[in-house]
Amino acid sequence: MTETVKSLPGGVFAAIPTPMRDDLSVDHALLAEHSRWLLANGCDGLLVLGTTGEANSLSVTERTELLDRLVADDLPAKRLLCGTGCCALPDTVALTRHALANDVGGVLILPPFYYKNVSDDGLYAVYDQLIQQIGDTRLRIFLYHFPQMSGVPISHALIERLVRAYPATVVGMKDSSGDWDNMRTTCERLPGFRVYAGSEQYLLPILRAGGVGCISATTNVTAPLAARVYADWHAPDAEAHQARVNEVRGAIESYSAIPALKFLMAERRGLASWRNMRPPLMPLANEQARELSARLARLRFPISARSTEQS
Amino acid sequence: MTETVKSLPGGVFAAIPTPMRDDLSVDHALLAEHSRWLLANGCDGLLVLGTTGEANSLSVTERTELLDRLVADDLPAKRLLCGTGCCALPDTVALTRHALANDVGGVLILPPFYYKNVSDDGLYAVYDQLIQQIGDTRLRIFLYHFPQMSGVPISHALIERLVRAYPATVVGMKDSSGDWDNMRTTCERLPGFRVYAGSEQYLLPILRAGGVGCISATTNVTAPLAARVYADWHAPDAEAHQARVNEVRGAIESYSAIPALKFLMAERRGLASWRNMRPPLMPLANEQARELSARLARLRFPISARSTEQS
Repeated sequence: MTETVKSLPGGVFAAIPTPMRDDLSVDHALLAEHSRWLLANGCDGLLVLGTTGEANSLSVTERTELLDRLVADDLPAKRLLCGTGCCALPDTVALTRHALANDVGGVLILPPFYYKNVSDDGLYAVYDQLIQQIGDTRLRIFLYHFPQMSGVPISHALIERLVRAYPATVVGMKDSSGDWDNMRTTCERLPGFRVYAGSEQYLLPILRAGGVGCISATTNVTAPLAARVYADWHAPDAEAHQARVNEVRGAIESYSAIPALKFLMAERRGLASWRNMRPPLMPLANEQARELSARLARLRFPISARSTEQS
Repeated sequence: MTETVKSLPGGVFAAIPTPMRDDLSVDHALLAEHSRWLLANGCDGLLVLGTTGEANSLSVTERTELLDRLVADDLPAKRLLCGTGCCALPDTVALTRHALANDVGGVLILPPFYYKNVSDDGLYAVYDQLIQQIGDTRLRIFLYHFPQMSGVPISHALIERLVRAYPATVVGMKDSSGDWDNMRTTCERLPGFRVYAGSEQYLLPILRAGGVGCISATTNVTAPLAARVYADWHAPDAEAHQARVNEVRGAIESYSAIPALKFLMAERRGLASWRNMRPPLMPLANEQARELSARLARLRFPISARSTEQS
């Protein structure tokens, strides 16, 4: 964990879930342990405090403490992309400033997501005011496009306007729309802009289209497989590795993503508290959990503390 | 402003916009002035820090300061309904506790609005944990149903479950869905539950259906007219008063509500800064502003500092 990474790498990122104790406070030690496991098992970097991390269910104070503790626990900050986008700009400014002070590789910024049908001018003003208020040339913003969850899409016109105004600051995006045409179009229209697919099922396609990697919830499970795709994605067997990734992801994605992942983390670690989550999200029902385990076993990808394919 | 109101009254409420200085900080003096104007011109109570108040564009600290300053400025706390619902439960708990300490008439609580398609069990757990953590018999919760904005509807099954569990605490709702069938059904299924329509266009209908009033953005303009409906809603001329309310509201509601209202407040007060708002919301374009003024003038409801019908 001592290597130096100069800026946020491309490749395979997991959007890490936030483990919680039985009182729903953040379990910092377990988070650090899981983060290390991911970096040792196929991940080039980690997204902390994204959708999967239940970031919006945590207060600003809880979010800053989470990052502080993770960095203090020797996780390599430059490999971390930290979610800092809130509805209230003062919160986004505070969290972004704090993430920069921790020297993270980048910040992932949701648009303010309460008001719907807002104009591109309004969204531009949010990012513009944020960048002006931060006033730090080290700032590297990745836009977070997840319209199904945020209800606020980020248009290509908006991205282009931001990149024109702040080419050294607005440097990339995570596209969680699941809309391949949108991802491909971004890569085509903005060469050099660092696009991460929001699902590892698009890892090979987005690398071929000019993107740089994937940042995904299910990568917490599939990272060792996705790493094989990324390691030599020009090689002939990349397609076969991608197909294997898709097969395993396909088994998980028919369940509610965050509860399913937290269940699988609990299985891998042999620790029931991994299933804890803050409402309105609820742990995966036991019946679904058994079904998911069975599906992964049928795919010869059993989740357990000693799974050979993973370690 | 010294009368005592024992609990949140029914009747006509304005969802007050939050005036901001040119640096977009809250203009507390102007907010207090506007609040007093509303209470003197037809409003039975006020919603502070709702959607119209840009609550979700303010930090927790800004929200607590806003309420503190308003109450310190002699506004009658028991006539205030204060929005305290955030995505993160710790924030909702902190704001709700603070509102209670200010002795407000009630709190209006949005469901956590980032995660979509969440279960009734998950939403129940949010309100349940909130009530348990507050642990104060003075707590009066009004549910905030605004699916077009929050993306998270509150079902009748959820309301009934909450009211059964906490009959003295979960006492009412603001229904901003614009769906009259939904409002009527709530009134029918939950006698005694205090339903406020989210638009004054439903004031007379909801009173007749068993509801208690309206809480609306456009009431900042129509309060003097809506008050005539409420004052004697059993009287034969209530229908005519309601028709007049609908006519004026109709002129405003074809514009984006918050920008339009802030423009009208600026006109009434002769103070351009009233148009300031936080992105992603943007002030009403000048052309639309002129058009809106002209429409209200044609309805013989001109907005100006000396409009006779209003004062």
